[in-house]
This record gives sequence, C-alpha cells and structure tokens, in this order.
Amino acid sequence: MSKAAKKESAKAKLDGNGSNGTVALTIDRETNASDQDHTSLRLWLRLLTCTTMIENYVRGKLREAFDTTLPRFDLMAQLARHPEGLKMRELSELLMVSGGNVTGITDQLEKDGLVERLTLPGDRRAWKVSLTKAGFETFEQMAATHETWIVELLSGLTGDEQHEIYALLGQLKAAIHEKIS
Amino acid sequence: MSKAAKKESAKAKLDGNGSNGTVALTIDRETNASDQDHTSLRLWLRLLTCTTMIENYVRGKLREAFDTTLPRFDLMAQLARHPEGLKMRELSELLMVSGGNVTGITDQLEKDGLVERLTLPGDRRAWKVSLTKAGFETFEQMAATHETWIVELLSGLTGDEQHEIYALLGQLKAAIHEKIS
Repeated sequence: MSKAAKKESAKAKLDGNGSNGTVALTIDRETNASDQDHTSLRLWLRLLTCTTMIENYVRGKLREAFDTTLPRFDLMAQLARHPEGLKMRELSELLMVSGGNVTGITDQLEKDGLVERLTLPGDRRAWKVSLTKAGFETFEQMAATHETWIVELLSGLTGDEQHEIYALLGQLKAAIHEKIS
Repeated sequence: MSKAAKKESAKAKLDGNGSNGTVALTIDRETNASDQDHTSLRLWLRLLTCTTMIENYVRGKLREAFDTTLPRFDLMAQLARHPEGLKMRELSELLMVSGGNVTGITDQLEKDGLVERLTLPGDRRAWKVSLTKAGFETFEQMAATHETWIVELLSGLTGDEQHEIYALLGQLKAAIHEKIS
C-alpha cells in the first residue's frame, strides 16, 4: 500500500460513522456529513445511502444472473401484480417515474416477447400493457431469486427491528403523502 | 368523476396500506405488495418508496427554485464538504454512481463556472475537482433551502422517531457493507 493510499484509508476509517461502534469500511454519500447537519438531513442521507446500496447491489445481480436491468424488473413486477393489465399512466404512477421512461422500457420488453399491448374494447386509441405467458414465467423465476438477495441483505436486522423500521417508515410515508398532495 | 375513475379511486383506497389506520391517498410501488410477500421484501419496497418520494420532491423543488438538477446538487454537496478537492474516482465512490455520469456533470458545472479542475503537483496527468468561489456561494444558498424542504418533509416523525430510524438504518448499513465487501 502506498503512503498516499494508507493516508486515504486512515481518513476513511476516521470519517466512518457506522452505528454501535462499528467502523464503516467504505465511504459513501453520508460519510462526511458534518456534526452541524441536523437530524432530518442526516436521516435523509442515511435513507438515501441504504436505498442506493441495495439498488446498486440488486442492479449488479440482475445483470449477472438474468442479463436484465432494474427498470425492466420493476416494470415486470408491477405487471405481475396486475394480470388485468395497466395503462401507461398507471404504470408511470406505480413506478414513480416519468411516462417517457416507461414507454421506452415497455417497447424493449415487447420486442423481447415479455409484454404485450392490449387494445381496450370500445376505444381503439386506448390500450393496456400486460405480461405475456413467457413474461410471467420469466418474472416468477427472477422474483424468487430477487427475494433471496433482499432477505440476505436485510438479515443484519432481526424480524422485530425490520417490523419497527417498516412501521416508522409507514408513518413517514403517510405524512409525506399529506404534505405533497 | 366518471364511473371508471370512481372505480379506480375506490380500488386505490382499498389497496392503500398506510400505517396507523391512515389510508394512503395515492398509489406507488409498494401499494400492491401481496400479503404473501415477506417482511424483508415489504421493508425494501417501503424504503424504496420513501426514498423515491423524497427524491422526486427535491428534484422538482431544485428545478423550480434554482433551475438545477439533483445530480448537480449532490456533486456540489460532496465538493462543499471537501474544500481540498476530490479526484473523479473519489467523487464517483462518494456519490455511488458510475464514473461516466460524474464526468458529464463535472463538465457541465465547469462550463457554468461552478467547479474547476486542479492539476496535482508532481503529476501532470492527475487532477482534482473543487468548487470555485461562485460555486461555493451558489451551493451554500441552495443547501440552506434544501434543508428546510427535508426538515418539513420529515416532520411527520418526532425527533425521537427520527433518531430511532437513523440508528436502525445505521445497523442495516453496517451489515450490508459487511455482506457486499
């Protein structure tokens, strides 16, 4: 290890702020939040860090195991929960992303035979998207593996702790809904 | 409200799973998670939902108030915490995004006079990025306003509840670091 690398490494350790006396071994977005930052801001940065860590891990695993992307997986997950099909506007709302992105991903999945567009009776301009049989089978397989990744990643918390965060985040979610609607 | 719209709206309410008896008024990625989904998966979807809600809100506000984007703001935030400057690799690690993205945003910010590239003494091929004086002033102003948005969005939780989630997420973060490193 070079002198500079050692210095870097020592700095990363000093800056680490893992809880319970654990020293974080890598650096991330919240590592250098200064002591003056307020509780809410620190909580937001930690929320963002945990989410990004899990997302990046899942993204890599999806590519490696199934040669697919996270947006494709997310879109198929919504369709799997709605066998009746979804309008583009509904998909966009559920995924909380812009309509343009949803259209692009749908086009790719359609080309691969995993989703299909269904014209709605009575209105030839309106249509829904749904999984094809192949799409459903592909998704089921990916979803089962995906869940094992998540269970493993979150296993640092006990079931009780997971329920506790879940409840608190439920409260947060409801409060944000009220504020932004 | 049309008959179809009423039906949609009733369905969204039935599917809502806000905690504490609160009915979520809009739909999102986790709304339709079925009862069979396990605790970890539900927690992950809620974590992702909360993060995306806050991110989307901040993204809209940054555009509206400062005509800027979230990736630009995030990059400037890291540079503000490192007045000595950061190498591209360090920036990329701190932001947990790929090097290509970081280079593109840095180029834009440099064009706007908000960041500058500094050649490192002794190695003409190595350089760091840091905020210019104008960049630092611009960031300070944005950061103060940004914090008021976050404080407001998270105010549905008491200080104690915020500390509780913060500690549990700290535990989660340390455990994930261990698993993926």
